[in-house]
Amino acid sequence: MKNIVITISREYGSGGRLIGEALAKKLGFKFYDKEMINLLMEESGFTRETIEEWQERRTSSFLYNLYMSTQEKPLSDQIYLAKTRVVSDLADKESCVIVGNCADYILRDRPGVFSAFIYAPMEARMKRVQEVYHENQEGNPKFIQKKDKKRNDYYNYFTMHRWGDCHNYDICLDSSMGIELTANVLYDIVKEIYGDISQVK
Amino acid sequence: MKNIVITISREYGSGGRLIGEALAKKLGFKFYDKEMINLLMEESGFTRETIEEWQERRTSSFLYNLYMSTQEKPLSDQIYLAKTRVVSDLADKESCVIVGNCADYILRDRPGVFSAFIYAPMEARMKRVQEVYHENQEGNPKFIQKKDKKRNDYYNYFTMHRWGDCHNYDICLDSSMGIELTANVLYDIVKEIYGDISQVK
Repeated sequence: MKNIVITISREYGSGGRLIGEALAKKLGFKFYDKEMINLLMEESGFTRETIEEWQERRTSSFLYNLYMSTQEKPLSDQIYLAKTRVVSDLADKESCVIVGNCADYILRDRPGVFSAFIYAPMEARMKRVQEVYHENQEGNPKFIQKKDKKRNDYYNYFTMHRWGDCHNYDICLDSSMGIELTANVLYDIVKEIYGDISQVK
Repeated sequence: MKNIVITISREYGSGGRLIGEALAKKLGFKFYDKEMINLLMEESGFTRETIEEWQERRTSSFLYNLYMSTQEKPLSDQIYLAKTRVVSDLADKESCVIVGNCADYILRDRPGVFSAFIYAPMEARMKRVQEVYHENQEGNPKFIQKKDKKRNDYYNYFTMHRWGDCHNYDICLDSSMGIELTANVLYDIVKEIYGDISQVK
């Protein structure tokens, strides 16, 4: 049996990262979230700082574009291309759970890929973000909307699909039922679809 | 334990009705789809023909509106109001699965309600519709888009929410994995969330 890859896209504050982590643990799969940055550094040759700055950003300013017109490819495009290679390599290598990084889009035509979008009502996200980050600013709906808008703009720019539109995912789930419960639901689905997963670990 | 109500909204040709029926059977719950029309006749006092004509339609033409301005309430509003009463009464009465009828919106603030939106890629829907209805016209994407648009317009008009926007549902599921499998997935989720459902039948 080939590898199974679960991609998790998520609204800011929905707990998607924790859900992905809990799901990976239950499945016994490798979990890729923060480790992605090391892989991107290796693949692209850029520093951590450059990738952190450009990995969820698309080109915008006039001066930047003017400067970059003298370069081979805009930085954001180079980092996106590195992402497509890293994500595809991971899917070739092993069964895993990948958070963010447009992985649902990059792997969209590959069999054995199950893509989930995690969302939650704004009140639930405000509560979560405030509890987790202990900063008032983070619990501000405008702050959350701004974070979502950044993810949305990046996804739309590189994929030309609408971020959060259910048609881009196999499932969309409201996580306000709880992190553990949402992870359990996804685990049940993966088992329902792929049967005995012990073969693919 | 109170009643559990599963609401199923669905794109045309996604097999949502069959999924709801299979789910109700597995859960041992009553299934409300075609029977709704009898309940609406009882509640509203309108004939089957009037309800069939107006239950997924909103007022539009100038002449119709001119005529209706002499009446107490537009027909479509009267039928929608009857729907809200019928759907709420069903949720009071028993655990059940309700297809369509804006039930997700009507019951949105009620505990024990789990709402699902079923969708599928256009190619899968064209194939399904052609297989089920054996009419070329039905497998035409424009025909399917027109059906969806009607459901979309009706839902948006009465609920002021966006039909198919994941934020209106607890889950959105792509049914192209298969009718039985989608029903099984929903069954697993209901059990995961509500535990022992034998208490609520």
